Amino acid sequence: MNGAQSLVSTLVGHGVDVCFANPGTSEMHFLAALGDPRMRGVLCLFEGVCTGAADGYYRMADKPAATLLHLGPGLSNGLANIHNARRASSGMVNVVGEHATKHLKYDAPLTSDIEGLARPLSHWVRRGDSAATIAWDTAAAIAKASEHPGKIATLILPGDTAWQDAGEAVAPPPAPATRKAPDPARIAEVAKVLRSGEPTMLILANKACRVEPLELAGKVAAGTGCRLASQFFTNRIERGAGRVPLERIPYSVAPAVKFLKGTKHLVTLETKEPVAFFSYPGLPSLLKEPGTQVHTLSEADEDSTLALQMLVEELGLGSAQAAYQQAAEKVMPSGKLDPISIAHALCAGIPENAIVVDESLTSGRESMSYTLGAAPHDMINNLGGSIGYSPPVATGAALARPDRRTICLVGDGSAMYTIQALWTQAREQLPVTTVVFANNTYNILKAEYANMGAGDRPSAAALTMIDIDRPTIDWIAMGKSMGVPGVQVDSAEGLARALLDANGEAGPRLIEVKLY
Amino acid sequence: MNGAQSLVSTLVGHGVDVCFANPGTSEMHFLAALGDPRMRGVLCLFEGVCTGAADGYYRMADKPAATLLHLGPGLSNGLANIHNARRASSGMVNVVGEHATKHLKYDAPLTSDIEGLARPLSHWVRRGDSAATIAWDTAAAIAKASEHPGKIATLILPGDTAWQDAGEAVAPPPAPATRKAPDPARIAEVAKVLRSGEPTMLILANKACRVEPLELAGKVAAGTGCRLASQFFTNRIERGAGRVPLERIPYSVAPAVKFLKGTKHLVTLETKEPVAFFSYPGLPSLLKEPGTQVHTLSEADEDSTLALQMLVEELGLGSAQAAYQQAAEKVMPSGKLDPISIAHALCAGIPENAIVVDESLTSGRESMSYTLGAAPHDMINNLGGSIGYSPPVATGAALARPDRRTICLVGDGSAMYTIQALWTQAREQLPVTTVVFANNTYNILKAEYANMGAGDRPSAAALTMIDIDRPTIDWIAMGKSMGVPGVQVDSAEGLARALLDANGEAGPRLIEVKLY
Repeated sequence: MNGAQSLVSTLVGHGVDVCFANPGTSEMHFLAALGDPRMRGVLCLFEGVCTGAADGYYRMADKPAATLLHLGPGLSNGLANIHNARRASSGMVNVVGEHATKHLKYDAPLTSDIEGLARPLSHWVRRGDSAATIAWDTAAAIAKASEHPGKIATLILPGDTAWQDAGEAVAPPPAPATRKAPDPARIAEVAKVLRSGEPTMLILANKACRVEPLELAGKVAAGTGCRLASQFFTNRIERGAGRVPLERIPYSVAPAVKFLKGTKHLVTLETKEPVAFFSYPGLPSLLKEPGTQVHTLSEADEDSTLALQMLVEELGLGSAQAAYQQAAEKVMPSGKLDPISIAHALCAGIPENAIVVDESLTSGRESMSYTLGAAPHDMINNLGGSIGYSPPVATGAALARPDRRTICLVGDGSAMYTIQALWTQAREQLPVTTVVFANNTYNILKAEYANMGAGDRPSAAALTMIDIDRPTIDWIAMGKSMGVPGVQVDSAEGLARALLDANGEAGPRLIEVKLY
Repeated sequence: MNGAQSLVSTLVGHGVDVCFANPGTSEMHFLAALGDPRMRGVLCLFEGVCTGAADGYYRMADKPAATLLHLGPGLSNGLANIHNARRASSGMVNVVGEHATKHLKYDAPLTSDIEGLARPLSHWVRRGDSAATIAWDTAAAIAKASEHPGKIATLILPGDTAWQDAGEAVAPPPAPATRKAPDPARIAEVAKVLRSGEPTMLILANKACRVEPLELAGKVAAGTGCRLASQFFTNRIERGAGRVPLERIPYSVAPAVKFLKGTKHLVTLETKEPVAFFSYPGLPSLLKEPGTQVHTLSEADEDSTLALQMLVEELGLGSAQAAYQQAAEKVMPSGKLDPISIAHALCAGIPENAIVVDESLTSGRESMSYTLGAAPHDMINNLGGSIGYSPPVATGAALARPDRRTICLVGDGSAMYTIQALWTQAREQLPVTTVVFANNTYNILKAEYANMGAGDRPSAAALTMIDIDRPTIDWIAMGKSMGVPGVQVDSAEGLARALLDANGEAGPRLIEVKLY
C-alpha cells in the first residue's frame, strides 16, 4: 500500500472512520485512499466547517474524527474552530497535506510554515518523514486526540509520503482511553467542606455533565444543600425534564458576581473557577467573592464520575434522592417574539433526545434558562468564543447521531461566518434544524460598547460597524442557495410550529426568526 | 486622547484611511475611534473578507489599508488571504485586539497565542505595551507595510491600551516610500546577454507590469528580439489593447516546460525563475530547460522601471518602437459556452479601465489568453494559491477605484470560501460584477488527480470529494440573500449581454455562468 492508504487504514483500524475534508492538489492520493469503504468522507466547502464538524462529532460520539486540509492556508481556515474545539476539550486528528519534501526549497506559492501555524492551537504536531512511518504517526495522533480531555493532533504529510510505498502498516494497537483516578485527599477535603454547612457550589463541566455523574451530584446536593452549577458555556450537558438540573453562572460580570455572592466554597469538576469572558474597565476578572475558597474535586483529566461516587460514599449519601427538573408545561405560545415566548416555543419544539447547539448570543442568552424543562436533550455551547461555531458543530453532531434531531440556534452575525455548513447538511441529508435569530445586528456588541466604557451608546459611525441591516440578509434565499428549505417566522406560535414541522423531516431545515 | 484614538489618528495621519473591520468586544474603543470622519470603516461579515479586501485595496491604491480583527481567532480567519496578500507583495496593517493585559493570566475563553498565529505569515509583529506608545507602534507598522514590496504588519493591541489615556500622539512622520536603485553591474550583464542574440526572455512581475515599465520592456524586445513574459500569476498587469503585451508562462508543468524550451537566458524583474505550483511524481519542480541561465535585472525590492530605463539607455534603444497589443474584434459571440466563446464574451463585456480579478481556475485558465485584446484593463491574479481570494480582493479593489468597474471571475468552489464579500459589496454599493463559473465541481482537481498519479480518473468515492453538484448551488439565490441581484446565463451571448448590462449599473451584480 502507499502512504495515503496506510494513513486511512490506520485511521479506520483505530476507530476514526469519519473524515471532514476539503482536499487540494497535494492531497489527491489521500482522496483516492478515502475511497476505503470503511471510511466516511464528508466534503465541506470551507475548512472552518471541517474543523467545527469534527468538534461536533467528538462531542456526540465521544471519539475523534479526522479532517483533511490543504496546506497552510487550508489549516488556517480551520483554526478558529480548532480554537473552539480545543477550549471544548474536543479531540480531533487534522491531516494537513504539504508539498512534496523535495519541492519545498523552491518556495512555491502555497508554501508556508505549517508547523508554525499549527502549534499555537494544537496539542501535538508532527511532520511525516516517509510513507513507511505514516501508520505509526497516525496511531500516535489518534492516541493523543483520544486522551481525556480530548486533544488537537495535527499531522503534516508531504505529498511524497502519500504516493510512496509504505509497505505494511505498522502501528501500535489502539490504546484504551483512560481517565485518571481522582485524588482521595481532595475527596476528603470536599466532603469536609460540604459537612461544614457553609454555602457551597459544585461547578460541573465536560464529562461531569452527563446523566450518571449528574445523578450523583444530585444526591450530594440533596444531602448537603449545596448548589449545582455549570459555567455559562459547557461542551455538552445532558439536561431537560427528569434530569438533575444545573444552575448556569451568568455571562455578564455583574450578574455573575451577584450569582456567586455569599458562596463560601466553589468546588470544581473538570473545570477552573469562573472568570470573566473579557476584561472590562473597573470590573474584576475573577467572578467569585473575595474570600471564597476554591476546591478541586476532579481535575480536567480525571474521572469525575468516580470522584462523585467516592464523594457520595464518603458522605454516606448513597440512598439520597436527587431532585429532578420538572417538565415545562407544553403550551403552544403565541404572540410577539421575546425571550420568554421564544423559550416557550423552544420548549414546545425541542423533541425528546434532541441535540441543541446554542450560539444564539443576544437572542438566546435569556431564553435558555427557561428551556431546562424541555424534553430531555443535549445542550452544546461554544467554549472558545469564536463565532461561527454552531452550523459546523451541528453538522458534525448530526452526523454522529443521525437518529436524533439537532437544533442549531444561531444569531445572524455568527451564522454568516460558516454558513457553508448548510450545504454539507443538505448533501448528507442531516437532521438539522437551523434557527437563525435575525436581528440584523451584532446586538451583543451594543451592550458591550457600554460595558467597555466606550460610550453610553455607539455613535452613528460605530453603529455602521455593528448593525448588519444594510442590506438585510434574506435567510430563506440563503438556505435555498445551498439546498436547505426554509421558512420565516415572526411570532412565537410560528416558531413553535416551524420547529415541530421540521422535526418531522428527515433532512435539514432552516427557520429565520425575524426579530426586526 | 485614548489609545484607540491615537491609533486611528496615526493611521489617517500616515495615509491609511480605510479599515476593513470585524470587531468584537475587545475592540469597542477602536470601534468608537473609527468614527473619526477621516477614516472609512468598512464592515465585513468574515475576517477572510477583511484581509482579502485589504489586499485588493493595496493592489489598486498602491498603499496599505488597515484591518481590525478580534483576537487570535479573528486573525486566524483572515490568515489564508493574508497568505495570498503576502505572496502578492501587498502591504497591510492588521490591528488585532487582545484581552487587557491584566486579564491574560486568567486564560479566558478567547485567549490564544496571537503572536504565534501572526508570525508565520507576517513580516512584522508587535504587541502594544501601553496607550502612550500606540502612535509610535502604528507608525512603525505603516512604514513596514508601505515598503516595496509591500509587507504584512500585525499590531496586537491589548484592550487596556485602547481605553487608557495616550496623551498626545507622538510618532515619526511618514517615511517616503522608496525603492532601491538597481545594481548597474546587473544592467550591464543583462545588456551583454541581450546583445549576444541568444534566445532570451524577460519575466516581469509586480510594479514592472505597469504601463511605463512595459513600454520600456517593449523597446528592449523591439530592439533585441527578446520575449516578454509574466509568471502565470501576477499581482496586477496593466494589459489590453494598445499596451505592450506579456506572454503568460503556462500553469501546468508540461506546457510550461515546452514554453520555456530553447530559451537560453531568463531575465527576471521583481520575481524569481518560474517553479511548478505543486510537485508531481516524476515531473521537475523547476520549469526552465537545464542549462538555461537565470539573470536578475531587478530584485523584488528594487526599482524595475529605473532598471529598464538604464537597460534601454545601455542598449541605445531610446527611440525603439515597442509593439502593442492589437484590439480584439468586438463581436457579440453566440452559442455554447466554451473557453473561446467565454473569451469573446469577456472581450465584448470588459469595459475600458476595468479591473479584472481572476480566480476562474478551470473555466478561465484557457480563456484569459484570448482577452489580451480586450479594452485596456488591470488584470489581478492570486499569487498565493489559497482559494477564496477573489470576491474579497474585488471588494477592496473596487473600494480603491470606485470610478472603474471591477469584474471578478471566480469558480464556484472558490466563491463559496468567502462568499460573504457579496454583502459588503452590496452595503457599500461597489461597482463589482461577480461572474461565477458554475461547473459544480472542483474541476481542477480532476486533472490534478491524474497529474498526481493517483489514478487515471477519480473513483466514485473520490468524486464525492471533488464534485459539488449535490446539491447544486443556486447562485442567484445566494446573491439575493446578500442583496446582490443576479442573472443566470448559459450561452456566450447571454454572458456578453449580462456583462454589458452590469457595466451600466452603479452597484454590484452577479452573473452565474451555468456550465453544467
